[in-house]
Amino acid sequence: MPHIAVNNELAGIRGLLNFRPETAEPLGELANILLKDTEGLTPAERELIATHVSYLNDCFYCHNSHGAIACIYLDGDMQTVDAVRKDPQSAPVSDKLKALLAIAGKVQKSGKSVEARDIERAREAGATDRDIQDTVLIAAAFCMFNRYVDGLAANTPTDLTTYEQRARQVAARGYGKHIYTTKTNV
Amino acid sequence: MPHIAVNNELAGIRGLLNFRPETAEPLGELANILLKDTEGLTPAERELIATHVSYLNDCFYCHNSHGAIACIYLDGDMQTVDAVRKDPQSAPVSDKLKALLAIAGKVQKSGKSVEARDIERAREAGATDRDIQDTVLIAAAFCMFNRYVDGLAANTPTDLTTYEQRARQVAARGYGKHIYTTKTNV
Repeated sequence: MPHIAVNNELAGIRGLLNFRPETAEPLGELANILLKDTEGLTPAERELIATHVSYLNDCFYCHNSHGAIACIYLDGDMQTVDAVRKDPQSAPVSDKLKALLAIAGKVQKSGKSVEARDIERAREAGATDRDIQDTVLIAAAFCMFNRYVDGLAANTPTDLTTYEQRARQVAARGYGKHIYTTKTNV
Repeated sequence: MPHIAVNNELAGIRGLLNFRPETAEPLGELANILLKDTEGLTPAERELIATHVSYLNDCFYCHNSHGAIACIYLDGDMQTVDAVRKDPQSAPVSDKLKALLAIAGKVQKSGKSVEARDIERAREAGATDRDIQDTVLIAAAFCMFNRYVDGLAANTPTDLTTYEQRARQVAARGYGKHIYTTKTNV
């Protein structure tokens, strides 16, 4: 049960966003820019970074939500999503994405743990400054979203098929107001 | 030296916001709502929560920036700011704020570490659902801001007097666009 009185028909972060629409707006805008942007990193790569960080933070709601969205972008390839979630360095993704996932994993622990050699590795694999900034900010943002969801004990559906339904909506419509105003199962 | 090429005349998070103005806008809006709102928690209490979490994350730039802003709201009482930063439970603040700072400290570790009894304690001291949600989201947001700043190795001035100058501007004008477009020392 959530720690505060939210609309129980809205699962996960959606109930929290609905509780406080003033902050929901910039949070949604931030998610849209960081996860739907197509310059540099693809939306699939962005969602994979979010999924990995959420998995490291042990946030069931977030890593399943974003894993399901990444899966749609990858034409249903949940094996790749699972590999990135748990062990990105052995996953079937590009060297550039592996290097960026390594940076994201360090950011999850602490910003200070990112070293110059991590950045060099990403650059050598083709990452630009913008890719690096986006990776660090996606990882940092999910250290926020994950804590927001679990810190308030948001409702977390355990039926994974409901995450697929919701993922299709987000893939099609982005992280807009519909996220916290329309009732669905997840 | 920052890990990416930012304008070196803009210190800390300001150089990063200037590098990527698209995300700077929702980040600034989020900070404004969470830190300047006067309903429930005061701006001083909000900045103290931000300062404590940033200190726990060992983010020198953020805990000194927000500590300096809190100090202005507290009419120059840096002793209280320092006490909250390092050991909130023995600081000269209300029982309600102590309970909320305890929740913020748990969120800094992990969202999952917040327990029902932490919430009960805050409620018994007079905290509303909105105060609890704002506390969790401020703490979570600073787990993002701190990682953004340190994960990209943003420039961090060590002269604490420069933080005072900047704090006066933020206290007067909020977290708007001026944060990342006007050059100052900090």
